[in-house]
Amino acid sequence: MSQRVIPSPDAPTGTGSGAGVGRRAFLGSAAALAALTSSTAFTGAPQVRPGTTPVPAPATSPENFPGGADPAASRDLARKLLLVGDDGSDLKLLYLNVLIDGKLPPAPPTTAKKVLVIGAGVAGLTAATLLKAAGHQVVVIEANGNRVGGRIKTFRGIFADKALHAEAGAMRLPDFHPLVLALADKLGVQRHLFYNADITPGAQPTGTTPPVTYRAFTGQTWTNGKDDGTFKAPPAANRTQILVNSRQTSRAAYATAPADINASFTATTATTMSQALDQALRKVTVPTTGTITAQLDGWTKVLHQYDGHSTHRYLVEEAGWSPAQVQAAGTLENLTSRLHYSLIPTLMDRAIISPTNRYWELEGGTASLTDALAAPLRDDITMGRRMTRLVHSQTGVRVETTAESGTEDSCDGSPTTPTDVYEGDYAIVTIPFSALRFCTVEPPMSYPKRRAVTELHYDSATKVLLEFKTRFWEQGPGGFTGGGCVSDSPSRFTYFPSQSPPGSKGGVVLAAYTWSDDAIRWDSLTDGERYAFALNDMERMFGPVVRREYTGVGATQSWARARYALGEAVIFTPGQLHELHAASRTVEGRIHFAGEHTSLKAAWIEGALESAVRTFLEVHQR
Amino acid sequence: MSQRVIPSPDAPTGTGSGAGVGRRAFLGSAAALAALTSSTAFTGAPQVRPGTTPVPAPATSPENFPGGADPAASRDLARKLLLVGDDGSDLKLLYLNVLIDGKLPPAPPTTAKKVLVIGAGVAGLTAATLLKAAGHQVVVIEANGNRVGGRIKTFRGIFADKALHAEAGAMRLPDFHPLVLALADKLGVQRHLFYNADITPGAQPTGTTPPVTYRAFTGQTWTNGKDDGTFKAPPAANRTQILVNSRQTSRAAYATAPADINASFTATTATTMSQALDQALRKVTVPTTGTITAQLDGWTKVLHQYDGHSTHRYLVEEAGWSPAQVQAAGTLENLTSRLHYSLIPTLMDRAIISPTNRYWELEGGTASLTDALAAPLRDDITMGRRMTRLVHSQTGVRVETTAESGTEDSCDGSPTTPTDVYEGDYAIVTIPFSALRFCTVEPPMSYPKRRAVTELHYDSATKVLLEFKTRFWEQGPGGFTGGGCVSDSPSRFTYFPSQSPPGSKGGVVLAAYTWSDDAIRWDSLTDGERYAFALNDMERMFGPVVRREYTGVGATQSWARARYALGEAVIFTPGQLHELHAASRTVEGRIHFAGEHTSLKAAWIEGALESAVRTFLEVHQR
Repeated sequence: MSQRVIPSPDAPTGTGSGAGVGRRAFLGSAAALAALTSSTAFTGAPQVRPGTTPVPAPATSPENFPGGADPAASRDLARKLLLVGDDGSDLKLLYLNVLIDGKLPPAPPTTAKKVLVIGAGVAGLTAATLLKAAGHQVVVIEANGNRVGGRIKTFRGIFADKALHAEAGAMRLPDFHPLVLALADKLGVQRHLFYNADITPGAQPTGTTPPVTYRAFTGQTWTNGKDDGTFKAPPAANRTQILVNSRQTSRAAYATAPADINASFTATTATTMSQALDQALRKVTVPTTGTITAQLDGWTKVLHQYDGHSTHRYLVEEAGWSPAQVQAAGTLENLTSRLHYSLIPTLMDRAIISPTNRYWELEGGTASLTDALAAPLRDDITMGRRMTRLVHSQTGVRVETTAESGTEDSCDGSPTTPTDVYEGDYAIVTIPFSALRFCTVEPPMSYPKRRAVTELHYDSATKVLLEFKTRFWEQGPGGFTGGGCVSDSPSRFTYFPSQSPPGSKGGVVLAAYTWSDDAIRWDSLTDGERYAFALNDMERMFGPVVRREYTGVGATQSWARARYALGEAVIFTPGQLHELHAASRTVEGRIHFAGEHTSLKAAWIEGALESAVRTFLEVHQR
Repeated sequence: MSQRVIPSPDAPTGTGSGAGVGRRAFLGSAAALAALTSSTAFTGAPQVRPGTTPVPAPATSPENFPGGADPAASRDLARKLLLVGDDGSDLKLLYLNVLIDGKLPPAPPTTAKKVLVIGAGVAGLTAATLLKAAGHQVVVIEANGNRVGGRIKTFRGIFADKALHAEAGAMRLPDFHPLVLALADKLGVQRHLFYNADITPGAQPTGTTPPVTYRAFTGQTWTNGKDDGTFKAPPAANRTQILVNSRQTSRAAYATAPADINASFTATTATTMSQALDQALRKVTVPTTGTITAQLDGWTKVLHQYDGHSTHRYLVEEAGWSPAQVQAAGTLENLTSRLHYSLIPTLMDRAIISPTNRYWELEGGTASLTDALAAPLRDDITMGRRMTRLVHSQTGVRVETTAESGTEDSCDGSPTTPTDVYEGDYAIVTIPFSALRFCTVEPPMSYPKRRAVTELHYDSATKVLLEFKTRFWEQGPGGFTGGGCVSDSPSRFTYFPSQSPPGSKGGVVLAAYTWSDDAIRWDSLTDGERYAFALNDMERMFGPVVRREYTGVGATQSWARARYALGEAVIFTPGQLHELHAASRTVEGRIHFAGEHTSLKAAWIEGALESAVRTFLEVHQR
């Protein structure tokens, strides 16, 4: 049991040492460079709010805005969504400069601080990396005894073919998430294409893997390399299957003649339901081609008017859809189980998950990223300690922890008594609010923060993975690599591996990937039941070959049942975005908050990284 | 492995033997009696819909009603809600006559049928009891290996004081649920008052326990005894605590001066939030004093207009509430975690769960009811067989089952291979749709039914029970018996025992009773963590005595994690009532459907019983 007591004087103001040198060229403009030398430029950091209780919300806050959302709050959310700093700067560009190029903002003198980082997920590891590079002392406290990474988790070495791995959590990195891609590049983690839409087996990309390039809305371009323009991804084959209402067809065939599948839902829609959904959402879709002012205005309006709408309400009342249309689009476009959530995450996700977008995956699995982040922090991470109490004062923070028995997903075991105490100048709390809900914070945090901790809705997401001796789905004229099938079976979405290790004949299929209500039904089942049911569903689609080729090895992950995650990720119910989001990231005395739930890219690594850089800047500049 | 093949001819029409004699006086009117002698009077039974796929929905069904709910569907739902038969009869009166008085309707000759009842919850046991009494052969197939009762489950013999028991599931029987109360009376299960609002310790009811009395909207009165008018329940003391935003007070003090507690949410409401909520809901509250026609009209309008509204939407947009008011009422009146659900269940539950209503509990626990039902069915129940496949044809049904390893709540164990097959003339499926989702039905059921199975939202509900050596909460001037505390801690609601066995000094406290999002956070935790956190929360309210008096024995039940329940009970998300409810109870060929989810008293035993009598009548009369 360690008892560390570190004096923690309030950080004085001034300019200090900027540590760390970027290994990539910085192509930012004068304005962005200015942001790195002016201590007032870091306008992404919120105001410090003393941690007393209750703090009456300001009159302009949503707390006191009856009958709807506060327009000022809507504008603030639009800025956060588009990463527009208070001075109009592009915060994504800033974050790239800081995270990838190691350009550190000025900080007050004698600013070496001791920072307790709670949680060794990607947000915590990244914040710790930045703090350490800037000369601060960090202690990362992780509840899990045998693994860092949080909801980045790769199943390795558990399949019959030891060369195979599969993702329990984050699995695809969108091309337009530059922080995560550039971070992987910086850490030397190779990336390969993830085929969200299937390709012809054997097809390969040609040319040189392109660098990460970000075009800021301020006109600057950031990149970590030179694009020779030769890269070409193989085209989508669209041979993956749709099996709904006892009708089976390929995605390509459905796109050509959608009427029969739609009619099986009693829907008379003449286009694919994806097209119909795009059409229905057109009036709330803000064009990404407009100026940043136009985008801000557009999003402010959409957020203000539609945060209170569920997706169901919008489709029925605004788009005039029949239940049959809602059910058809819900089944094919993964909306059914999420109809009662706010329309806004549907809009956001629809922009991110699209068959026409390009995605990447990481060599060795997504955990390669967090492993690479964790390696240099080896001596700074304390494993197997769960925070139970967080005490903060004008001078520092103290974190009490407990050691736990049982494994990450175990269903028994009770807290053991030994208590470790850690002290520091500041804390960055990166654990989900669903986990923070069970920690005592003294003095209590502000009223709006406590509401966010209590109320923020966490989605459920569950994966069932099955290993096969051969990649039978790649065989024959209908064969395909990568991509995903959809069905109205309990399994709902079935994804196939995009890449396979040389020499491996088999592959691990993500047989069932479900969210929300679809996932909750799986969460009630035992692991063995999950494998059996997922196999049944795959057999329905592919026939008896499925049973012959199954190695008997499966893996499954229920994020709602994971004792340290307590849910997959935040997804807002109607109104929560206005009522809770801003408070999720405000500073409470000496406590700062990071994690996907404090970003407006909830559930995405990119959002966790944005939040990590934001909190690093908050703490570094104090 | 048994292979039973029973010839199953289609039941011819005609009149047949009515078996069973009621032990209570039948006080129904001529109209209700007529319902028992006319084979056309059982209009509660829906039309048989052949089990082909897909069945296009009729033009008047909500399936084809774009932009909102079908008014005809709203009226149909209002009739189902108020239990109005198509001929205007009072179906509750009919159900009392059948279930309690054993008055059986006429049935075709040579109608002895073999009926497979899937699930030995209260709906399945009741349907089986009625079928057997009417001369049919029943086989009840229960997945659980060691317990009947389903979501009626009493923890017995597991506490340090073996005389104590506590409820994992249903725990309070409202005074206005005559079927369950009269059934308990009929089975000889004693009932005692359940104090939803606390009373002064030592206070006792006086007089004779009143009989169950039901006043039908048709003017008849049904009762199972004579009320001598002497019964008097002890008055509420309202000493249970409210602990929110670090402010603690008694319910009585809050009722007298609500401003301080409300202000801690930054709400300026001058009344209690319960009163404010009543006021806000007034315009959608249908008076129970009106004629049945007025009630039907009123409910039709409310259902039509507000099924698409979430509770959040109604409070913000219709009542003009601020988020602060929503949060205050949400916390104190158990709405926070359910704000995104349809307004309609909020209206229904608000009428049922009220401190001014009277409730009962059963001697020995609620499981006394299902135990008493199961005893005479001992030879008719097959334990430890889970249905995997249900095949139906023009002539009969076949149920394939699997034996499972592991216990009811175990987290490992996989399906074992032995298959038992059962055949019969008809099936009554009483398992939750969340469980039916994983069963294969061949040929597939109708499209609307499949949507209901896929989409119906199941709530989560989780209980954490802690045993104490003494009932310290009954001590001192602030002492109380029964009732419940509310807090903004993770535990949210804490209920105290209303009755204690003679000689037992201690008691089991329902330390944490949570639903929906509040429950999901607990569901991620191990049992040991749950006990520790619930104890923490109780200590916050009652001080260190809690830790001293804890026996170290707890029990916990997560209904969302229970592998045979797969959720607590149905609760509709906006629009689901219109889109899915009617289909949940339609007959599919020879398959009938019972269970709370097929009633409009979801989550209540009374709803399960209504559905059991309905399906009994459906099958008996075929």
